[in-house]
Amino acid sequence: MSRPVLALLTDFGVRDHYVGSMKAAALSVCPDLTLVDITHDIAPHDVLGGALQLAASFRYFPAGTVFVAVVDPGVGSARRGIAAEVGEYRFIAPDNGLLTAVLQDTPPKRIVELTERRYFRPTVSRTFEGRDRFAPAGAWLLRGIELNALGRPIHDPVMLDLPRPEVRDDELHGCVVQEDHFGNLITNLDRRTFEKFIARRDFTIVVSALPASASTISRVVATYAEIHEDEVCGLFGSSDHLELAARSARASERLGLGAGASVVVRRGE
Amino acid sequence: MSRPVLALLTDFGVRDHYVGSMKAAALSVCPDLTLVDITHDIAPHDVLGGALQLAASFRYFPAGTVFVAVVDPGVGSARRGIAAEVGEYRFIAPDNGLLTAVLQDTPPKRIVELTERRYFRPTVSRTFEGRDRFAPAGAWLLRGIELNALGRPIHDPVMLDLPRPEVRDDELHGCVVQEDHFGNLITNLDRRTFEKFIARRDFTIVVSALPASASTISRVVATYAEIHEDEVCGLFGSSDHLELAARSARASERLGLGAGASVVVRRGE
Amino acid sequence: MSRPVLALLTDFGVRDHYVGSMKAAALSVCPDLTLVDITHDIAPHDVLGGALQLAASFRYFPAGTVFVAVVDPGVGSARRGIAAEVGEYRFIAPDNGLLTAVLQDTPPKRIVELTERRYFRPTVSRTFEGRDRFAPAGAWLLRGIELNALGRPIHDPVMLDLPRPEVRDDELHGCVVQEDHFGNLITNLDRRTFEKFIARRDFTIVVSALPASASTISRVVATYAEIHEDEVCGLFGSSDHLELAARSARASERLGLGAGASVVVRRGE
Repeated sequence: MSRPVLALLTDFGVRDHYVGSMKAAALSVCPDLTLVDITHDIAPHDVLGGALQLAASFRYFPAGTVFVAVVDPGVGSARRGIAAEVGEYRFIAPDNGLLTAVLQDTPPKRIVELTERRYFRPTVSRTFEGRDRFAPAGAWLLRGIELNALGRPIHDPVMLDLPRPEVRDDELHGCVVQEDHFGNLITNLDRRTFEKFIARRDFTIVVSALPASASTISRVVATYAEIHEDEVCGLFGSSDHLELAARSARASERLGLGAGASVVVRRGE
Repeated sequence: MSRPVLALLTDFGVRDHYVGSMKAAALSVCPDLTLVDITHDIAPHDVLGGALQLAASFRYFPAGTVFVAVVDPGVGSARRGIAAEVGEYRFIAPDNGLLTAVLQDTPPKRIVELTERRYFRPTVSRTFEGRDRFAPAGAWLLRGIELNALGRPIHDPVMLDLPRPEVRDDELHGCVVQEDHFGNLITNLDRRTFEKFIARRDFTIVVSALPASASTISRVVATYAEIHEDEVCGLFGSSDHLELAARSARASERLGLGAGASVVVRRGE
Repeated sequence: MSRPVLALLTDFGVRDHYVGSMKAAALSVCPDLTLVDITHDIAPHDVLGGALQLAASFRYFPAGTVFVAVVDPGVGSARRGIAAEVGEYRFIAPDNGLLTAVLQDTPPKRIVELTERRYFRPTVSRTFEGRDRFAPAGAWLLRGIELNALGRPIHDPVMLDLPRPEVRDDELHGCVVQEDHFGNLITNLDRRTFEKFIARRDFTIVVSALPASASTISRVVATYAEIHEDEVCGLFGSSDHLELAARSARASERLGLGAGASVVVRRGE
């Protein structure tokens, strides 16, 4: 029989023992896990950033995977911990919006609050619930308990207001949501929204942090290799959202932009 | 049957192939390992830092876990390699004090020197004993050999002089031993020592690198969420030691302090 | 039966979800993998750097290991993807020279182009073939298919021109190929070439970026511990190539040098 997968996403970094201690706590509950790191380098306390990375990756995991996601500025406070069943997956997280993009992608079958103390470690640190509550709860799911066993159902998980594209004044308005490792600037404009807006006509993409310093992009290509030297192009990346990319260089540096920058698509040249 | 866990802690970083090659050497001896990284970002040659991270995490691992810890400025020299049995765990490390905090936490059942060459790789590089001696020895333990098979017993492992809190002139003196990923400053003052000293009275915590630039902290809170904006508080973190923390900010930057800073607790305001 | 090993090397970094999504795709094909990271911190698009790290580590893995290596500036373009059988190992990579050092180390038994779409994910992103083509193909090999099933044989893989040592004007000329995590400068001079050239006589090693700023090294030691304070020595590191190292310091900073620097060995003092 194949081993169940526990996937982890946190803002803990990997310099301290924190991620290792979380994994230790999970293995102490369910020794036959396969552990997979999505990333531990979410910017400290960046719940939105964590929500987007989680949503970009979860669908590639095998059915049955349990995700433990911890970006948790409110650790130890009254904010709830939750478990959600979404399609063939289950998620454990603080109830602070970290699951927003997953839950908007696929309506959850059920969500419960983590209240059953028997599935936590015997002593729960108020500064490290990842180790003492979330990782053990995820491992118990993989050991075979039902989601309902973790606590009482809830229907009002905290949801973030994700930045959404909108059409205003005959322009499509979006923003850069993330700068990746290669310096590509990933926007919130998905391919369908973009293509529907431009409707096979010419277009111009204007990106800027301040209106005075806008840059203009007029080519959308299919692969990084099609970008010319000294050029910044648009392309639809691996999650089918528009990203701004340069050739063997960081688009973020070329444009002097990062997460939060405005992206406006205009029809016509 | 559940798979045995090999946990790794080094100062090798993850930019080079070194950690991957250690894991490869372990899997070549015992293919059914579950490998867990504690951290590979101990500062280069910082044996004390490695000792503290190892001690902070080992107790969360399942019984039977074998730890291979390598922070080893003396690699290839005459310094010994050792294996120690401590509670339900076993440790492999250079004999340079890296196990000090573990051995002080729990008296070892036995310690041996790694002398049996049959449990090393056939050729041992004098610059990479992690791959050629320590990882294979750890994997052999998980494959079922006894600790004693690795070499002859020793009773004098090298022990570091860990910085310990002490009461002087009616003050409790400690220090910052580590700055974590979030900029929290973790001290060597454990909760019991602190609470016994202040004995439910008012207190002031004075932290400083130089006496002229001391900062004063007068609140110990239970969770990060209780810290006010612009405030630095004390709290007892996940290993029950006093740490200095800020709200959505790095205490280390707020205070301009790092590992080594002095921490003095005074009774009264 | 022991679980098969899938080893990964990329330039993806670990800040984004990319590596996690590749692992997810592999586990979706073959759930019983042991996943091992060699490194994901190859400098972006540095095919040569990836080739050298892969060659330095693969031989330590268990027989049967499949390597998926992705440093791929041409992702999505017409460049081929390939699978190679080399000794007891199999490799999946873009056909851009990333396997050069492995293939020069051990002549491959066979190489095929990845053309069989049934072993890719159903939709293949033109910007993330690591997730959609290479990781699944590697996992299929571990699930039991033959290399030949992945596509048609080829005999002309792209090979890089690796920097090789050469004797000119009675001097042995090499270069620094890599700076490691500790600041050691690793050269392309292997022990046999070096020892044959100096033939037990005195020698001087001259390292420089510009001729005007050359440094001279006259001691080759066996271990880092033999290096004196303030000294930079040569030693033969874990892959038996000459490296330049300092004591508790970064040789790269001491010498002001990095990858690409010239290394010239002269006989006599």
